[in-house]
Amino acid sequence: MEKINMGANVFIPMPVTLLGIKIGGKANFMALGWVSRLNASPPLIGAAINKYHYSSEGIRENETFSINIPSKDLIKETDYCGLVSGRETDKSEIFNVFYGKTGSAPMIEECPMSLECKLVEIYEMQSNELIIGEIVESYLGNKYIKDDAPDIEKIDPLFLTMPDNNYWTLGENAGKAWDVGKKLKLGDDDTEYV
Amino acid sequence: MEKINMGANVFIPMPVTLLGIKIGGKANFMALGWVSRLNASPPLIGAAINKYHYSSEGIRENETFSINIPSKDLIKETDYCGLVSGRETDKSEIFNVFYGKTGSAPMIEECPMSLECKLVEIYEMQSNELIIGEIVESYLGNKYIKDDAPDIEKIDPLFLTMPDNNYWTLGENAGKAWDVGKKLKLGDDDTEYV
Repeated sequence: MEKINMGANVFIPMPVTLLGIKIGGKANFMALGWVSRLNASPPLIGAAINKYHYSSEGIRENETFSINIPSKDLIKETDYCGLVSGRETDKSEIFNVFYGKTGSAPMIEECPMSLECKLVEIYEMQSNELIIGEIVESYLGNKYIKDDAPDIEKIDPLFLTMPDNNYWTLGENAGKAWDVGKKLKLGDDDTEYV
Repeated sequence: MEKINMGANVFIPMPVTLLGIKIGGKANFMALGWVSRLNASPPLIGAAINKYHYSSEGIRENETFSINIPSKDLIKETDYCGLVSGRETDKSEIFNVFYGKTGSAPMIEECPMSLECKLVEIYEMQSNELIIGEIVESYLGNKYIKDDAPDIEKIDPLFLTMPDNNYWTLGENAGKAWDVGKKLKLGDDDTEYV
């Protein structure tokens, strides 16, 4: 396959989440796609945000935050949270807010799933900082549970691609992880691997 | 909405990628879902892997790596790379491998998109380490380009959810980011925001 060089500033598909912090006594939410689990045990998660975001200031106030997973029907509210800064616009009334065990990480009632986190460290880079937090509890709407786990199809999450800047829904089930690869046949023989 | 506590070890939807490193003169690939862009400028990306992975050893050898985005039709090969360790199994022959400007970050010919990275730092945590790299170049198969950008529908990427351990395809276009939120109407008035 012929390969074309696309430069260095490229992106992988991202989950769409909302980062919640409390600042000046009010809840604030920003759209967040640069987010990943970082550590298995204890359960750490990282959010890479621009240093000049209002949330960067806010995270230092209470040292707690939340990661909320909006469903597709919250697409406008989610995108809005990425369009305006909490520095100029009060975003505390967009959603119904609830608090968990930390008492200071605002979470979104309307989101199917919310992760409550305590700040562990802020890793500084040039334009961004990685907010590293320990997940202390998670909250799932009771209708989004199947087999004691989150029902991702009901959660109906969004994904983001850049630089085309499109939101996407979750597609079809493509198979079981740590399983479909067992059927791989390499070379000419009929051996099942693993 | 009634909320159920789901504990701390929860996961957000993840992109499915393949981490490529060269170790002992051979290419090795592992399935990687804990991955995110970290910094805008310079373009940094992070991969959070278990410290005991063979790739953890490998990354230190050449201080380069790749992040490859497999399409759905590579699901078996991708999953296989997550099932077996390079310590016991030679995975260098699964794909056709090519190299870019670093000369030591193996990339996958069959993957629509590959990011070539130079190691910047390894951030140590308890069970995992975050491999932080600068993207130095990216390579896109010529049939996966639309409007000078990656054509994500043609790339046909996979996503992973845990703990149900399912792979998912990309769904439908749900709207434009930094745009659909402009139509949000808050409260009773008809004001368009932003």
